[in-house]
Amino acid sequence: MTTMNQYDTPQSWRLPEPTLRRLPWYLAFVKLLKSRGETYVSSTQIAKEINVDSSQVAKDLSFVNISGKTRVGYEVVTLIAVLEDFLGFTVQHRAFLFGVGSLGAALLQDSGLKQYGLEIVAGFDVREDLAGGTLINDIPVYHISEFPDRQKALDATIGVITVPVDQAQSVTDHIIAGGIRALWNFTPFRIRVPESVVVQNTSMYAHLAVMFNRLNLINHRK
Amino acid sequence: MTTMNQYDTPQSWRLPEPTLRRLPWYLAFVKLLKSRGETYVSSTQIAKEINVDSSQVAKDLSFVNISGKTRVGYEVVTLIAVLEDFLGFTVQHRAFLFGVGSLGAALLQDSGLKQYGLEIVAGFDVREDLAGGTLINDIPVYHISEFPDRQKALDATIGVITVPVDQAQSVTDHIIAGGIRALWNFTPFRIRVPESVVVQNTSMYAHLAVMFNRLNLINHRK
Repeated sequence: MTTMNQYDTPQSWRLPEPTLRRLPWYLAFVKLLKSRGETYVSSTQIAKEINVDSSQVAKDLSFVNISGKTRVGYEVVTLIAVLEDFLGFTVQHRAFLFGVGSLGAALLQDSGLKQYGLEIVAGFDVREDLAGGTLINDIPVYHISEFPDRQKALDATIGVITVPVDQAQSVTDHIIAGGIRALWNFTPFRIRVPESVVVQNTSMYAHLAVMFNRLNLINHRK
Repeated sequence: MTTMNQYDTPQSWRLPEPTLRRLPWYLAFVKLLKSRGETYVSSTQIAKEINVDSSQVAKDLSFVNISGKTRVGYEVVTLIAVLEDFLGFTVQHRAFLFGVGSLGAALLQDSGLKQYGLEIVAGFDVREDLAGGTLINDIPVYHISEFPDRQKALDATIGVITVPVDQAQSVTDHIIAGGIRALWNFTPFRIRVPESVVVQNTSMYAHLAVMFNRLNLINHRK
């Protein structure tokens, strides 16, 4: 369960999405400073590195429960700890992955997600040959019909959706009915959910489309 | 090379990024309609399904070289073909992947990227044990020192960056100097590039942060 932890402070509740998307950039940079032996960082320094306005950095960090010192700025070690905690990376959020195809299997293999608070504890697929707990990266894969039982046992909060487009909505409905409360949608399909369910879309193919288009533009400028 | 193909029409050059990000949603939906045997689709239908304003859909599609018919709308088969072509998914863009760790190896395993125009033809890493062309999903992995030679032979346009944060900038500089012209950055580090180089950031961890925060918010409303 993710209900009780330190970052449940009122000011974190309505955090603007752009801020939430920038904070991990700051975190990565400050971790880099730490590995270089730095002990303090200023918001000006972060701003310069990330290429964001320094007043924006200060504003973003005002949501986080940390105060800097005049002239020297924030303590690097403290800022890392506070940001990781604030962003939810220090608590493991239990997740199931649905659709163990090419992308789904790839994500099961990415152990790095655990460092950011996402623990995928099981995968599900419609393929019969995957039933019975095939292991991928030590994560068992079950037939989708086993989802209700596994959900009873493991109480996963998050569903990672990597099914084909034509199954995206039906799988979504099925797992929400079974108690999944947040969806990380990797399909290029716009799934519909009740208002109480969280959705984050990671549209890798949309990013490719933007990249290809910009690349073309540059080729033509030459 | 990606320089010459059908979607190089002037109106595609300055396409707004939000439009470019919505078009793949439309494409996925229209493909779904095709699999259901539908022959026509209206912008109203797309708007309703994707939950976007229908005038926005019409405007987005005005960038694409297709015209609908009064009352019936767009021909499904034609719209799919035109969108796939326009988005660059029908041309293979040659890519190298840098950093064959957990996420990097996972992406090498995702054969689905090819369907969207991204062909990863080699991976590179600093680990000596990966040198000499270890195969992952039939894609050879080389030591990073072999990059210049491989680039001469294969002329990759795109670099997929999955190295650790502390190497993100140095790898970026190295591969741009070697001729890579677009970067798909999966690290949480804000890499800097010359203006002529395209960058798309896929910040999976930032998406997790947003998801965790929203989940907390909902837990507290209960």
